[in-house]
Amino acid sequence: MAVQKPSLPKGTRDFGPLQMARRNFILDTIKDTFRLFGFQQIETPAMENLSTLTGKYGDEGDQLLFKILNSGDFIKDVKEEDIQGGSSKVLPKVAEKGLRYDLTVPFARYVVMNRNDISFPFKRFQIQPVWRADRPQRGRYREFYQCDADVVGTDSLVCELEILLMIKRVFGKLGITDYDIKINNRKILTGISEVIGEKGREGELCVAIDKLDKIGWEKVQEELTQRNFSPDSVLKLEPIISLSQNNADKLNFLKDFLKESETGLKGIAELEEVFDLLHKYGESEAHVDFDVVLARGLTYYTGAIFEVKVNNVTIGSVSGGGRYDNLTGVFGLDGVSGVGFSFGVDRLYDVMDELGIFPESNLEKTKALITHFDEKGFEYGLQILHKLRSAGIPSELFPETGKIKKQLTYADKKQIPFVIILGENEIQEGKVSLKNLNSGTQETVSIEKATEILINS
Amino acid sequence: MAVQKPSLPKGTRDFGPLQMARRNFILDTIKDTFRLFGFQQIETPAMENLSTLTGKYGDEGDQLLFKILNSGDFIKDVKEEDIQGGSSKVLPKVAEKGLRYDLTVPFARYVVMNRNDISFPFKRFQIQPVWRADRPQRGRYREFYQCDADVVGTDSLVCELEILLMIKRVFGKLGITDYDIKINNRKILTGISEVIGEKGREGELCVAIDKLDKIGWEKVQEELTQRNFSPDSVLKLEPIISLSQNNADKLNFLKDFLKESETGLKGIAELEEVFDLLHKYGESEAHVDFDVVLARGLTYYTGAIFEVKVNNVTIGSVSGGGRYDNLTGVFGLDGVSGVGFSFGVDRLYDVMDELGIFPESNLEKTKALITHFDEKGFEYGLQILHKLRSAGIPSELFPETGKIKKQLTYADKKQIPFVIILGENEIQEGKVSLKNLNSGTQETVSIEKATEILINS
Repeated sequence: MAVQKPSLPKGTRDFGPLQMARRNFILDTIKDTFRLFGFQQIETPAMENLSTLTGKYGDEGDQLLFKILNSGDFIKDVKEEDIQGGSSKVLPKVAEKGLRYDLTVPFARYVVMNRNDISFPFKRFQIQPVWRADRPQRGRYREFYQCDADVVGTDSLVCELEILLMIKRVFGKLGITDYDIKINNRKILTGISEVIGEKGREGELCVAIDKLDKIGWEKVQEELTQRNFSPDSVLKLEPIISLSQNNADKLNFLKDFLKESETGLKGIAELEEVFDLLHKYGESEAHVDFDVVLARGLTYYTGAIFEVKVNNVTIGSVSGGGRYDNLTGVFGLDGVSGVGFSFGVDRLYDVMDELGIFPESNLEKTKALITHFDEKGFEYGLQILHKLRSAGIPSELFPETGKIKKQLTYADKKQIPFVIILGENEIQEGKVSLKNLNSGTQETVSIEKATEILINS
Repeated sequence: MAVQKPSLPKGTRDFGPLQMARRNFILDTIKDTFRLFGFQQIETPAMENLSTLTGKYGDEGDQLLFKILNSGDFIKDVKEEDIQGGSSKVLPKVAEKGLRYDLTVPFARYVVMNRNDISFPFKRFQIQPVWRADRPQRGRYREFYQCDADVVGTDSLVCELEILLMIKRVFGKLGITDYDIKINNRKILTGISEVIGEKGREGELCVAIDKLDKIGWEKVQEELTQRNFSPDSVLKLEPIISLSQNNADKLNFLKDFLKESETGLKGIAELEEVFDLLHKYGESEAHVDFDVVLARGLTYYTGAIFEVKVNNVTIGSVSGGGRYDNLTGVFGLDGVSGVGFSFGVDRLYDVMDELGIFPESNLEKTKALITHFDEKGFEYGLQILHKLRSAGIPSELFPETGKIKKQLTYADKKQIPFVIILGENEIQEGKVSLKNLNSGTQETVSIEKATEILINS
């Protein structure tokens, strides 16, 4: 057989040991938090029927779905003349399944199929890869993890509170300190477009003001004008754009601004209640920022909208979510409303890497390598190994006797912080020499003492 | 849009909260063990190039690969006349990628692509789903997890020792007590076929004796005769078949039986050394059973062969592995030998379910639900919630005030063991009523006391 030089499909990645340890640090932090807040994990299959996926993500999304060729003689129903009809004519005859594009549609399907067994309100989390046939580019992959938490089956604003609390806990545990949780409410945006005289046009309004950060107010004005917003409307919008007070003052300002819009005032009331719940829980408003121009596409949010932005890094926006009214209507089950949030794991990884804040010494790794010079040391090492592992210390015995340099190189490359050295003296005295590879210090101690040092370091 | 009744693709499954909690119990036990033994996690993409996958699993395996339709206008290179050529003619023009079929080939690819960065011996583990277009049936799915650990880059039999130790630890922690780790060595099988006069035919020999458990010795003899093994050879095999002594006696018997076969004696010596290492480590031979008829397909094993069988359950064989000589030759890198082992997660799940030994009270779940009768109780509950979570207790506040029965039903369905009840008196005294839903007992205590009880239960 000809030898092949293997490669990876475009837009996909391997994760090596160090990357995995770092990713697990992020994911474990998020999972712990979800569980502390009473969320339960589910998993759905990588493959879904195309009938489940198609039409849920717009035309562009349908294009970006990875389709799976039917197994067996997949071409049997295709006629020669079908070829002229092109891919869209042939597709339904050769593929029935596709790869998961996000976690929301599979979750909706899951809720519908299991509605009789689920106890609502249902707090679920799900952490799995998704696939999109996007053009790969820096920071955008064809396979990436999503990490979603949703509560469905209740309108209680406690859910919005808990999203704020979970974000604060996760970012705190990750060691990210300079970040903002931007929060807004769809009803406020609806209200704004009402009071500026462009009722029902909040969609267009949001597309334009969503770009405020990137292109500035002047360009946003131009875009609004192009979209036929009247000069008067644009002028009325001006005070909203430049709001920079604290949350309470902004809410007060908006209460006046939106006084003619019932929907707008409802949005303000909801937001005020979320802040009120935050105070009653005993948590401060630190990091929480009411951002009246936050829109996030707005395709299906009906209440709260969230986005987390890390300051002073290349890619700031790392997470987002919001409240929606009808998760499962497309599958025939109406009235399932909820609120969800998604942590962007890949982006959090990049942010932490850029900030250099991975706690390298706390990542999963072997704590001690037992080295030896000869058969006798090797045998003694087996006993030490047993004791260390019984004490729960991740440890290894270098599997081959021989050159000590090779053993030390192994420890170094694997970033193992301690080496145990077993020479003639150690064996005779029933002790071990424990060397800290970071500090360079070495001491000869009893096995019990070594165990204690390793556990506490 | 027409409403669809959603369904799952054939042979795939959702995992709900209880199943996930149980699966995580198994997977966390295995992961902990791998890490304690110095194995490092990697992950590879779900999709691989078909050039990486094809030809690695035999013709049948190639058929069972799920192929991914090229994105965009996938049909553009297909000519009308290609249709007559059938699926095999069309396939290379419409699909370049396939889904991972196992974790071994992606691992081999990973080793080849990262050989300059890996520090050998490389101890890796990998836990990810794989996909096979098998005909679905009870216990066989089209998507299932594999859970592999391999050490490559050393011939040391310490690796074989560690596989035995890891199996013992995992099964012990899972609470599975009645099981056997069967161990054999390819070289012993080679030796046996030599000394019975059928040199080089150990492949056929093994296919036949692999069935001994299922069809019995008589039928195995028939099969060997059909395969043209001489009556004399079959007769010589007889004493091997019925060996039922302890490991040491079996090894001694075989040492004599194989005295004319250098390879056979090498196999015995390797196995003896593994037992010797086990003793030196200070671990007993309990559960470890030298099984001279264990073959496991034998396609690429060159040394030790392992299989774990749980006794007195429907599907006994739950895990297996062995030593191989050339993991990466097909990708142009020779000389990478190693030994690997795979835990069958789905089968372990079924076994534990059948035995009824999931530690339900230790599974991930919310520990306390805070219930309330009115707005005042709800507000007080927010403060309690904050305290419980700060103490690391997974807890929830029912998000809506109202009927207490609804709140208790929620706790019951979610199997939450404790309920905190906040009535007029509790609020006034700054206490809580803590009810244990399993025992039915209820007591009114301080928040600190409740926290303590919850932490310790």
